[in-house]
Amino acid sequence: VNLQKYAIIVGGGSGARMGSELPKQFLTIGTKPILVHTIERFLSLEAMQIILVLPIMYFSNWDKLQQEYFSENKNIKLVKGGSTRFQSVKNGLLAIKATKGLVAVHDAVRPFVEISKIKESFVTAHSLGSAVLAVKSKDSLRKIGPLGSKVLDRENVVLIQTPQTFDLEKLLTAYKVEESTLFTDDASVFEASGFLVNLIEGSYSNIKITTPEDLDFAHVILSKSLKV
Amino acid sequence: VNLQKYAIIVGGGSGARMGSELPKQFLTIGTKPILVHTIERFLSLEAMQIILVLPIMYFSNWDKLQQEYFSENKNIKLVKGGSTRFQSVKNGLLAIKATKGLVAVHDAVRPFVEISKIKESFVTAHSLGSAVLAVKSKDSLRKIGPLGSKVLDRENVVLIQTPQTFDLEKLLTAYKVEESTLFTDDASVFEASGFLVNLIEGSYSNIKITTPEDLDFAHVILSKSLKV
Repeated sequence: VNLQKYAIIVGGGSGARMGSELPKQFLTIGTKPILVHTIERFLSLEAMQIILVLPIMYFSNWDKLQQEYFSENKNIKLVKGGSTRFQSVKNGLLAIKATKGLVAVHDAVRPFVEISKIKESFVTAHSLGSAVLAVKSKDSLRKIGPLGSKVLDRENVVLIQTPQTFDLEKLLTAYKVEESTLFTDDASVFEASGFLVNLIEGSYSNIKITTPEDLDFAHVILSKSLKV
Repeated sequence: VNLQKYAIIVGGGSGARMGSELPKQFLTIGTKPILVHTIERFLSLEAMQIILVLPIMYFSNWDKLQQEYFSENKNIKLVKGGSTRFQSVKNGLLAIKATKGLVAVHDAVRPFVEISKIKESFVTAHSLGSAVLAVKSKDSLRKIGPLGSKVLDRENVVLIQTPQTFDLEKLLTAYKVEESTLFTDDASVFEASGFLVNLIEGSYSNIKITTPEDLDFAHVILSKSLKV
């Protein structure tokens, strides 16, 4: 893919769910903060511009990490987060001056995404306009309605991960829509504008670290991946 | 709950997915096989009869565990598994001589179900006829159809766990239905007969151990729970 590549890395949250003062993306697994692991994976692609979206109260935390881990790197731009994920991603998009290119949106707290999957998402988004990582549910699923719950055919339902990678111009168009509570990710914003969401296979180790159990699991995944 | 309680513990599989000769339920976490952890949790309830369903080729593995961990216990009945989960549960049900009582169906490879949740499932099934553990999805969800995928409102979708506990007479009736590939669990069999499936809150640590990553995570959950 010869187009300019952007990655909006979204870090939100106050860390309340972790029982910790510090937001999850600043917690350390192995020897480095989660956010550093995440950014390093994206920076291993060529022609990659990172737009890091963080709550303004944590800008000073980032400054220290920038100096320690990325002091030579001019390809990371820091942007103020919004009051919702939608607003944060929108702020990230507004910080991109171009309209041509490809843009991945990724959770700061998903440090284990394989580099090969990031690359695949850009290649697919280049040819098809979008590429969203998804995995099959291992559990049975039920849909809750006004008259109780009903079984959902799990063969036809997928769990959505990030990165979610798009043609930049299309995602810019999509994010002009009015915000809705149905927008739980970028794919749902993208399809609300009539664009087609293309799924690619994610992986079960690409976890989102949101609970203390997730953090425990993250330590295990990291120690296993170092042994490989 | 004064009614007789039954628990059908279903252990299937050849262990192929684990990259191991031995099926998952016989793998050790902490000091004991997964299956022993699971059965012990159910035996902590009073008036509990266990029906253990295993592939016949693993009966000798069970015999050793029975002698080592449950030699004094007369409340565990061993039953031959079928070619599908549906057939295995049906075999378990046929081994119950009574028609009155309550029956939980539980995956052998879910050793971390809280005892309080097992109790709650029996209390709820006693009053409402069924109780199925479920948790909210932490991920966004999409439904795959012939024209591509569409967002599913994750507020209205739950991931289903076990135990799934039922009025015995109703579950016996339900299992007279012809088997269908849509039956991924007992709740889906139960509702196919027109019975109402009642959901209760599960927990994220009640994992089903099916992959090597799950087994790693299981070690973490166990070591944490021992510290509490």
